[in-house]
Amino acid sequence: MAFQVTTEFLEKIEQLIAQQDQDAIREILHDFHFADVAEILEELDSEEATYLIKSLESDITSEALMEVDEDVREKILERLSPNEIARELNEMDTDDAADVVAELDEDIQQKVIDRIEDTDHAADIVELLKYDEDTAGGLMAKELVKVKETWTTAGCVREMRRQAKNVTRVHSIYVVDKQGKLKGRLSLKDLLTAPERAHIADIYIPKVDYVTVHTEGEDVARIMQKYDLEAIPVVDEKGTLVGRVTIDDIVDFIRDEAEKDYQMAAGISGDVEASDSLLKLTRARLPWLVLGLFGGLGSVYIMKGFDEAINSYVELFFFTPLIAAMAGNVGVQSSAIIVQGLANDNVKGSLLSRLLKEIGLALINGLALGILVILFGWIAGLDQRVSFTIAISMLSVIIVAALVGTFVPIILNKRGIDPAIATGPFITTSNDIFGIFLFFYLSKLILGF
Amino acid sequence: MAFQVTTEFLEKIEQLIAQQDQDAIREILHDFHFADVAEILEELDSEEATYLIKSLESDITSEALMEVDEDVREKILERLSPNEIARELNEMDTDDAADVVAELDEDIQQKVIDRIEDTDHAADIVELLKYDEDTAGGLMAKELVKVKETWTTAGCVREMRRQAKNVTRVHSIYVVDKQGKLKGRLSLKDLLTAPERAHIADIYIPKVDYVTVHTEGEDVARIMQKYDLEAIPVVDEKGTLVGRVTIDDIVDFIRDEAEKDYQMAAGISGDVEASDSLLKLTRARLPWLVLGLFGGLGSVYIMKGFDEAINSYVELFFFTPLIAAMAGNVGVQSSAIIVQGLANDNVKGSLLSRLLKEIGLALINGLALGILVILFGWIAGLDQRVSFTIAISMLSVIIVAALVGTFVPIILNKRGIDPAIATGPFITTSNDIFGIFLFFYLSKLILGF
Repeated sequence: MAFQVTTEFLEKIEQLIAQQDQDAIREILHDFHFADVAEILEELDSEEATYLIKSLESDITSEALMEVDEDVREKILERLSPNEIARELNEMDTDDAADVVAELDEDIQQKVIDRIEDTDHAADIVELLKYDEDTAGGLMAKELVKVKETWTTAGCVREMRRQAKNVTRVHSIYVVDKQGKLKGRLSLKDLLTAPERAHIADIYIPKVDYVTVHTEGEDVARIMQKYDLEAIPVVDEKGTLVGRVTIDDIVDFIRDEAEKDYQMAAGISGDVEASDSLLKLTRARLPWLVLGLFGGLGSVYIMKGFDEAINSYVELFFFTPLIAAMAGNVGVQSSAIIVQGLANDNVKGSLLSRLLKEIGLALINGLALGILVILFGWIAGLDQRVSFTIAISMLSVIIVAALVGTFVPIILNKRGIDPAIATGPFITTSNDIFGIFLFFYLSKLILGF
Repeated sequence: MAFQVTTEFLEKIEQLIAQQDQDAIREILHDFHFADVAEILEELDSEEATYLIKSLESDITSEALMEVDEDVREKILERLSPNEIARELNEMDTDDAADVVAELDEDIQQKVIDRIEDTDHAADIVELLKYDEDTAGGLMAKELVKVKETWTTAGCVREMRRQAKNVTRVHSIYVVDKQGKLKGRLSLKDLLTAPERAHIADIYIPKVDYVTVHTEGEDVARIMQKYDLEAIPVVDEKGTLVGRVTIDDIVDFIRDEAEKDYQMAAGISGDVEASDSLLKLTRARLPWLVLGLFGGLGSVYIMKGFDEAINSYVELFFFTPLIAAMAGNVGVQSSAIIVQGLANDNVKGSLLSRLLKEIGLALINGLALGILVILFGWIAGLDQRVSFTIAISMLSVIIVAALVGTFVPIILNKRGIDPAIATGPFITTSNDIFGIFLFFYLSKLILGF
């Protein structure tokens, strides 16, 4: 049932834009959902998209602008005048508006803000701009419904009618004292089902989860997920209610975080997409490949250092890519489990028990794989001493790789560095070098070349 | 501000459980949030946890049971009688209750259902059990507030007071006709701010997004995210309103999907956690390692096939792990971007333009890395012909690896297979083998050994 942009539909819109037929465009799109308008905008070139934005009402376009990719929005905003941008901002929720202002060139930010019709709205946006984007302050919107504890429910409904105009979705009504300090909350359902003469003080729930403006976005996401909250109030240092974070922003936040971790694990930094420019994609990918290259060059030196084995045990060199692959795979597996556990806060038990478990797991896997290698050697007619040496060295490499994969993320996390950086190329590369060295070193010890 | 289970607190609870002091336990925990009770349950052994469940009121424990890990819940449920389980289910939302029943052994499912006090609730649970868990039918709950279009707002508020008892959060009020067919929706805000005498028919919004019971969970998630919905009604084949899916279930769904993709990319199948048993972890990890092992053994054969190069061009063998690492890294990068693009539905443009872009990207990266290899060769005093050969072969390997990484997920996706399976070990292993072969083959062509 979801709308899909078809080629024919798009061609029609493009044709109408080329004919500058604003009436027809409005006629077709006026009752479209903003998310569908956003999909259309993404398919148009920036000149066409700008024309579309100018043709439609700001209440749709302001929301559609928030749905499109940052790059697309940037290109459209470049083509709009400060007045036109201000008109869009006027319709946006304060949190979205602040995000857009932050994306603008600094020299026009003030111009745009000065042109926003609703001056209270403009002041709210300026206030939000001062918070770091990854904190509750940066995620929150100023739009909310608040009532004083001394009011009656009837007065509360009256006040709500007034305030609710600006609030797209009322999740909870927040109760504050005379100084504006957060005291509790009231659900719409409670308000609707309470007797008309009751006082707010009698029916509100004094227990309310909240965060401060400085709470990290990750923590806000964790609290909202843990307690299944759809909105959480945000207070300042004095306990004054200053905004709220809603679940839809958190859904985006969770998805972005998961995507960043996934990309990091694949050796891609920055938040890129398939549709980004070659330059942006290269910047995100090349550094990790260079890291891998240096790792590979390190292996070249290591193998060179053991080149006296070439004449008697050339098989060792044939098995090196296998050893490197095993070290890499095991390291990535171990680190992925730990990184996810750290993100979900369920890495429990002592370091020692974790150590023993990883060694146990590596032993089981290493023995199983070692037996396969010995079997292979037997079938391929390899010298038995050589296949045993390879199997034993591989087992050791697997154990070490599992330990590195487990403990590097834990250590990084303890030092306050995002452990996700440790999965992927970083672990693969270091385990490659380390594994190859260990493999030749142990082989030399056992075979004595 | 979020609650943290401390060791001291836990010891105190364990002590009270050992003393069988139910009153003290109730005293301490009666106003705890269920999510915090869940955290405590996870730290206790299953006997202690069961005692705690039996000591507290079902309205808290039923929610706490839904928050704990499936393993923990399973162990607790094993220790409860059908009557005790039924008491918990009676308090749960129908969607949660159905999930729990589905987890029970088949021979006690019916017993438990027969013992649920509220028989309507039990019938709803039985109805939900018939849907596949990854569809809207499997995700939805029966709890919702619905009104008939012919009612007045005052009558609607009366009816809501009655229905809302069972509904934790009222997002939208759904409007149905006499046959129960979905006609539209009404927000609580609209109801609250509408004149008392108005008829629902005059104020409801006839445009409503909905899904059918058979809509895939992924599609439900996509629609809810795209349109920023907090709940979506679910209809059956005839258009009759049968339930609703709420955003909190979708948040869990999105997170689970992202975690599965991430694990798949790391070569871990099944949905495992750091705290799972050695056996479960081995089953999730070993198959991928065996795949990698076979890939590595394939490389052994390939290198053996080119062993005439050993005497004159031994450096090629030293560079093989580097080539394999590059092929693997580039393949994983390309596939991760495509897999993410496919998941977010933003892989646009024709296959040809994608092909050209990937080749362009691989050329840029490959040339940059090739220059580094030549520089290294110059510093290390390598034969210039050899370093150029390595650089050129590496460039070709990178281009091929990027193409494989891009097109394997696209092809899998077209055939209805989860493309995430293509990232990680699968791509790494096939690119290793393919890359090593290409490397030696091209080197042989150029150097003529």
